[in-house]
Amino acid sequence: MLIAQAVNTPSGTQLRPIDTLRESVRLAAGLTENKLLGNDAYQRGLTAIKRFGERIRGFDPANVRAVATNTLRVAKNAQQFVNDAQEALGFPIEVIAGVEEARLIYIGAAHEVQAVQGNRLVVDIGGGSTEFIIGKGYEPKLLESLYIGCVSHSMRFFPKGNIDAHEFKEAELAARREIQVISGAYLNSGWKQVIGSSGTARALAELISANDLNGRSNDSGGLITREGLKALKKHLLKYEHVSQVELIGLKDDRRSVWPGGLAIMLAVFDELGIEEMEVTDAALRSGVLYDLLGRSQHHDMRYVTVEQFMQRYAVDRDQADRVGKLAADFLQQLPKPEAENRADNVALLQWAANLHEIGLSISHNGYHKHSAYIAGNADMPGFSKNDQARLAALLIGHTGKLGKLANNHNFHDWRMLFCLRLAQVLCRGRNDTNLPKIKVSEHDGSYLVSLSKEWATEHPLTEFSLIKEATEWERVGRSYQVSLK
Amino acid sequence: MLIAQAVNTPSGTQLRPIDTLRESVRLAAGLTENKLLGNDAYQRGLTAIKRFGERIRGFDPANVRAVATNTLRVAKNAQQFVNDAQEALGFPIEVIAGVEEARLIYIGAAHEVQAVQGNRLVVDIGGGSTEFIIGKGYEPKLLESLYIGCVSHSMRFFPKGNIDAHEFKEAELAARREIQVISGAYLNSGWKQVIGSSGTARALAELISANDLNGRSNDSGGLITREGLKALKKHLLKYEHVSQVELIGLKDDRRSVWPGGLAIMLAVFDELGIEEMEVTDAALRSGVLYDLLGRSQHHDMRYVTVEQFMQRYAVDRDQADRVGKLAADFLQQLPKPEAENRADNVALLQWAANLHEIGLSISHNGYHKHSAYIAGNADMPGFSKNDQARLAALLIGHTGKLGKLANNHNFHDWRMLFCLRLAQVLCRGRNDTNLPKIKVSEHDGSYLVSLSKEWATEHPLTEFSLIKEATEWERVGRSYQVSLK
Repeated sequence: MLIAQAVNTPSGTQLRPIDTLRESVRLAAGLTENKLLGNDAYQRGLTAIKRFGERIRGFDPANVRAVATNTLRVAKNAQQFVNDAQEALGFPIEVIAGVEEARLIYIGAAHEVQAVQGNRLVVDIGGGSTEFIIGKGYEPKLLESLYIGCVSHSMRFFPKGNIDAHEFKEAELAARREIQVISGAYLNSGWKQVIGSSGTARALAELISANDLNGRSNDSGGLITREGLKALKKHLLKYEHVSQVELIGLKDDRRSVWPGGLAIMLAVFDELGIEEMEVTDAALRSGVLYDLLGRSQHHDMRYVTVEQFMQRYAVDRDQADRVGKLAADFLQQLPKPEAENRADNVALLQWAANLHEIGLSISHNGYHKHSAYIAGNADMPGFSKNDQARLAALLIGHTGKLGKLANNHNFHDWRMLFCLRLAQVLCRGRNDTNLPKIKVSEHDGSYLVSLSKEWATEHPLTEFSLIKEATEWERVGRSYQVSLK
Repeated sequence: MLIAQAVNTPSGTQLRPIDTLRESVRLAAGLTENKLLGNDAYQRGLTAIKRFGERIRGFDPANVRAVATNTLRVAKNAQQFVNDAQEALGFPIEVIAGVEEARLIYIGAAHEVQAVQGNRLVVDIGGGSTEFIIGKGYEPKLLESLYIGCVSHSMRFFPKGNIDAHEFKEAELAARREIQVISGAYLNSGWKQVIGSSGTARALAELISANDLNGRSNDSGGLITREGLKALKKHLLKYEHVSQVELIGLKDDRRSVWPGGLAIMLAVFDELGIEEMEVTDAALRSGVLYDLLGRSQHHDMRYVTVEQFMQRYAVDRDQADRVGKLAADFLQQLPKPEAENRADNVALLQWAANLHEIGLSISHNGYHKHSAYIAGNADMPGFSKNDQARLAALLIGHTGKLGKLANNHNFHDWRMLFCLRLAQVLCRGRNDTNLPKIKVSEHDGSYLVSLSKEWATEHPLTEFSLIKEATEWERVGRSYQVSLK
């Protein structure tokens, strides 16, 4: 956990760290073979989060952001853990996708390491995934997240802590095989600076420095060289078990996971032809805060992403605008529960309107399903997994039958869906004919749509569509009335 | 069924009809509420197809093409029917998607109706779907297929044959509501000529002409006017039941389905602002033959589609080429069962190689699933549903675990998958390093890959990957050996 203060400086707002809390929970080690988070790790995680929650009790929710990464991306009981953890923390927790993690890591690293002219490569070896980013200045350009991590790799190749040269070679090759998939594009792009941004990189750099393995006199522990890694490996392979390894500065909570981390780092150096790497840590944590700061300053990355998607999928912008404006207008007319952040929901509703037709790029037939597929599966910088799941649900539900959502117990955005569907029905003609004043209201989950009877009579097709819409809602047990006066 | 002879003319190869067989089976009327093809319709269909099969027994399979449309797109027991029907016909039957049907209809209509300068709009009201196409000359530009058809509409609005003005209005509005979705784009594109290309259009034109409702003196039955449609509707609404309707030329096999067709045609005229329409029929049938003729003359539309997809999804062409060439080389080394059309399979394998990375446009993570999703769901002109299903299976299986295909009983392309996966493993480095000579062989479903031991030792990562690949095949119970000599 990182607590920082936003400070205005001549070169923009900077975050000044005030407090950090770190607990090595090794959540990834708690994953069973069938991808369940085991009870021990579950409890270790909750206990740590509870302590963190104490420290930030009373903070304004707008100033807190908690993210979860790979282990909670893959664990089958992740939702349950996130629910418990949110209660323990007292704030929402977002599970973020690998590529989003990569983006945030880059932002953090870019703020923490002295900039160079030209591209920067950032490598972040985590517990269960490793992120690779090439960027320039504060802008990430290539973002990848691979399923290799120091904890999972150590468990796979050194499950009982036994060390041998053959297994170590297999561990390196397995990691190289994953990295090979992206190495071509990365090498083509090139870089002037390499940054290792994780606890693994920091730990390796410290081991190399403390044991004087870099062959440099002025080694302050902020550098990993190929020579240093090779010396570490040679040293490790002298032993038969991780518990025997003697190295100055080797911490007990790293003892079982650093061999996997070392194998991955060697693979990174080999596949990408790296000779040396600067080290920083906590890049993800500060990246998350810089991104939050951006949102408060109207540089929300999610707007950029939606804009890019509209372009990539050649969305009819006029239609997206029409639907979005109307839907937002409807939402503003409806009751707002105290807990709801209406501004956030208006933004989400408009993104849904902007993206509701992206599936047309695949096929007109069932396009709403394709829109939802893309929004649910694409890399969408700035969006959490939960954001994407909500978007996808609105997209699949924005037209056609409602039964699919009535059976989805994770879906709660009925009010927004009502607005989106109604807007879509009214804009089906895809032109700017003047709509009459339309009033919507909601009481105890019953919807009422009121408009001029005269106008409806002149527009029989829209009237017909509104009645069909009401029927569809009634079919899933929700009252929906169309009042013509 | 249309049997035609290809004749060379100064303006290109033309098809001269030799024989036509038509049976009104009304398959769409046999769909039960839960989308099963009922026994009566099933048997009517098989009986008709058996008769057709007799007529073309002994034809070269390369000169026969049989397609199935909407009812077999939606029926849940379609696969079973297609299997039985193929046996009855003695030739393969392709189920084609709505947009592909639209493309073929346009090609047929464009060859049958005298061309005009400018755009042509073709509307084809079928039993369960209606296709709308705008094109120029022989080139379709806008293609859509909507779920409204004369049989399904008649069953929905006039299920017992009762006629009343209110229900007829509902039928018109329901059709307009569907057409509204596409009308904006179509009206923007515009047209100089309107062609109705289905049996429904032909039947309506004949009723109008025989009963002198167009208000034209020189009416030869090839024209539908708005005036004629309105007069037909007015006449229909005089009766209370379809069985009572008196009209010159009303055939018994049209009696129960023409009111739905009339409502849809009126909706088409209203939504698209049409005043009159020329009529042709059999457009789909002749389109299918012209398309088959194109394939034999190396104008296979599928190559064009794959090319467009590579562009649309920004495929790395060098990589696609490498993988495709290698995979095709491997397939040529493997045994060919007598029934296999090897040239077709080589083409399909190369298309799979060309498209295997299209899913990267959605996300790197699980991209093979996204590639398969797109290939399985997109509109792919020239490809049948079965072509697309085979492509999608190769794409989802080209990397990662094989279990998903081992459990798919419709998947039979193991030999091609072996070639594609092996090529992908060998090309993972994405560069043109010279591969050694690689021999592949297959005996009783066991695969053997042989290459130079020396080269493998110099390329430990590729060797490692080959061994992993063998392990993956063994895991699904298929023997796979890598021999280094």
